[in-house]
Amino acid sequence: MSWYDYLAANQERYLAELVEFLRIPSISSLPEHADDVRQAGHWVADRMRAAGIEHVEMLETAGHPVVYGDWLHAPGKPTVLIYGHFDVQPVDPLELWESPPFEPAIRNGSIYARGANDDKGNMLTPIIATEALLQSEGALPVNVKFFFEGQEEIGSPTLPPFVAANKEKFACDMVVSSDGGQYSDTQPELAIGLRGLAALQIDVQGPNADVHSGMYGGAINNPIHALVQILASMRSPEGKILVEGFYERVRALTDEDRAQIAAVPHDAAAFKAQIAISDTYGEPGFSTLERIWARPTLEVNGIWGGFQGKGTKTVLPSLAHAKITCRLVADQDPAEIVQLLIAHIDAHTPAGVTVTVKPEASAAEPYLMPADHPGNVAARDVHLELYGKEPLYVRSGGSIPFCSLFHKELGVYTVNFGFALPDEKQHSPNEFFRLHNFERGQRAYCMLLERLAE
Amino acid sequence: MSWYDYLAANQERYLAELVEFLRIPSISSLPEHADDVRQAGHWVADRMRAAGIEHVEMLETAGHPVVYGDWLHAPGKPTVLIYGHFDVQPVDPLELWESPPFEPAIRNGSIYARGANDDKGNMLTPIIATEALLQSEGALPVNVKFFFEGQEEIGSPTLPPFVAANKEKFACDMVVSSDGGQYSDTQPELAIGLRGLAALQIDVQGPNADVHSGMYGGAINNPIHALVQILASMRSPEGKILVEGFYERVRALTDEDRAQIAAVPHDAAAFKAQIAISDTYGEPGFSTLERIWARPTLEVNGIWGGFQGKGTKTVLPSLAHAKITCRLVADQDPAEIVQLLIAHIDAHTPAGVTVTVKPEASAAEPYLMPADHPGNVAARDVHLELYGKEPLYVRSGGSIPFCSLFHKELGVYTVNFGFALPDEKQHSPNEFFRLHNFERGQRAYCMLLERLAE
Repeated sequence: MSWYDYLAANQERYLAELVEFLRIPSISSLPEHADDVRQAGHWVADRMRAAGIEHVEMLETAGHPVVYGDWLHAPGKPTVLIYGHFDVQPVDPLELWESPPFEPAIRNGSIYARGANDDKGNMLTPIIATEALLQSEGALPVNVKFFFEGQEEIGSPTLPPFVAANKEKFACDMVVSSDGGQYSDTQPELAIGLRGLAALQIDVQGPNADVHSGMYGGAINNPIHALVQILASMRSPEGKILVEGFYERVRALTDEDRAQIAAVPHDAAAFKAQIAISDTYGEPGFSTLERIWARPTLEVNGIWGGFQGKGTKTVLPSLAHAKITCRLVADQDPAEIVQLLIAHIDAHTPAGVTVTVKPEASAAEPYLMPADHPGNVAARDVHLELYGKEPLYVRSGGSIPFCSLFHKELGVYTVNFGFALPDEKQHSPNEFFRLHNFERGQRAYCMLLERLAE
Repeated sequence: MSWYDYLAANQERYLAELVEFLRIPSISSLPEHADDVRQAGHWVADRMRAAGIEHVEMLETAGHPVVYGDWLHAPGKPTVLIYGHFDVQPVDPLELWESPPFEPAIRNGSIYARGANDDKGNMLTPIIATEALLQSEGALPVNVKFFFEGQEEIGSPTLPPFVAANKEKFACDMVVSSDGGQYSDTQPELAIGLRGLAALQIDVQGPNADVHSGMYGGAINNPIHALVQILASMRSPEGKILVEGFYERVRALTDEDRAQIAAVPHDAAAFKAQIAISDTYGEPGFSTLERIWARPTLEVNGIWGGFQGKGTKTVLPSLAHAKITCRLVADQDPAEIVQLLIAHIDAHTPAGVTVTVKPEASAAEPYLMPADHPGNVAARDVHLELYGKEPLYVRSGGSIPFCSLFHKELGVYTVNFGFALPDEKQHSPNEFFRLHNFERGQRAYCMLLERLAE
């Protein structure tokens, strides 16, 4: 029996397994569900063993555990590390769920449950594909390691030291992540970039207490004005960042990059209407998608100081504060960006106030892989066969820790190969996963592993 | 008996009367003390009648009452309206008072109680002076009207329509205010200027909800940055106000004005040390006292928007806000200044955000009287005789409503003629009044009324 027929013959069982997996309320953010996260890890480990994956074990981190397994009997072939996560988001507001989040329900060809696509349905597909290949061919076409974590939904806080301490165990030629999706049900995508993050807080102190604006106004510096002056110096009115050296390491967009981004549909009117803005805005010379995907930002996320009540209080405040985050792109370094910001703030601090800058713990490396990485080439071939269409090459303006973590510690890129869709209510009530994509994912992983052996 | 001897002979009684007056807890800001404010008004009315003042009556305003009286039997002589207030500030924190605030105590030649100098001790002196003149001379040298209010400590909110509706009743050649003080116990002053006030709030709206800084950052305008840009456009880094037309009506300082201000001692080191700032700051070309007394300001009193908690929240906020007040100098007009600010904000609003400006109710006209106003000339002569020194001509950076109110409605200036001192803890626990200044004030008022007749 071919793996294709094997998959087709076992769909009923796979769906029953997915239902069983989804019944475990493995919410990683809630301490009272820590045992459920661990139970989900055990379920995954058992399922991997049943599929024929070897050396399956639960590895302890300083937080939720990681489940590892491998199959390494393809000498001379690449080693692929398959990533996914078995933890899920919280479920509130519970009253908005049409069926209970941990009692999976099938409606209109989709399965509804918390974690249905993010990431339990998705992460099950490579395990099933492995089973199908082993059952039908007796071997896998490449060496495979599996790395399933239980803390993705809380930002994988204890993963960096864990991966750093286990570099040989996880050594591979590439990572393939099941945690992701496609552009639409008929249009595949390859996600190749993520932005990084650097964060800090600025505190400006003027007088040692709030003072009377009549008695002091005009003769001392007001920390709010000093803060405004510092912040205004950091960006041009058009949105170009004026911090010296900020753009120095930014990888310029090639003509090919720009063509790939331009190929992605962007409905400017819908973009504006969705958040009710009259106009877009940003760094001159770039399109909206380029600004979000391929250019760094400097944004004040919060500002406060002085009187915020009703009416008037004629005070010159003692303190003013701002929180800033920068979204970074390859090859910017978060720590270096913080240093550049501190130097800029220092150089632009006016007389009569004291400024303190506190870097925040939140930091993430930007991530950008070559569009023609061998993993992407293989994935593109699979997409072309499954969808009959070339994939779009997309990026994300947000930050996901594991891609840059694996790149930094293992020196490899992550191919994003998941089958969720944007309308499937990830992180929201009534999360669902289309069952034909559950099945398509299984076939896709069989095809991908075969392509990677070529 | 001369008025001088009459005063000397009655000091014991006057002190007993002051004690009685100070026992009334006439706190105008606390509704539960409204009856006490009224009782203090009755006490004042009775005391005025006992002094020989005629037509004494309590006049209702939309808030606390006003006590009026007059003595108008000096044909051909000027009419002076004497101002004071019988309401007081709250007393908390009560535990910091060495003796209870409404049980007057005499220690070291001073009387300690809430209202001792502000303004009960001060406002009693012209009543006593009137009695002494009537008892000794049988007549006053000028026509006198008395106007004592009960809402000065809450900003005299219901006084403007009340004065406007009674212009003939209060018509006079000048106002003399008992609500004030001297530079020091050995150095007299004449306060000739106050700054006015204009106030508004700016609200900046970007997207219709807080949005993800990864998904939108770089492609839409952030209302905090838009607000920063607007605020930065309003002042030069050196503190000059850049709003078009803002300085147009500002009366320039003459050489004499500058000499008068320069004559007032200013300890720059102490000024900085008191509020722990490293440097003063302000409009180029002006001294610290000139900046506070004779130049207008534009100050952000409060700013807020977005995330103000601990750590990082990667959000682009929907809203950002700032509160602005301007201290104004003669001949700026608060309503016109608000219009200029609105026009400036309008012209400097960047694309992609919506800005709303709300003028606040707080507004005050600036006040500046001629240093050589006849009332000041007379007061200067009295000071010279009482202190043996020329007065300093000072101004205040703050705003007191009644000076500009009387100027606007009655067309007359207010001579400031009170005898409090800066160290006497007005508005604070352990407020006190030096008894020798209580007596000096009585003599000063007799002398002033005589001078004003010349």
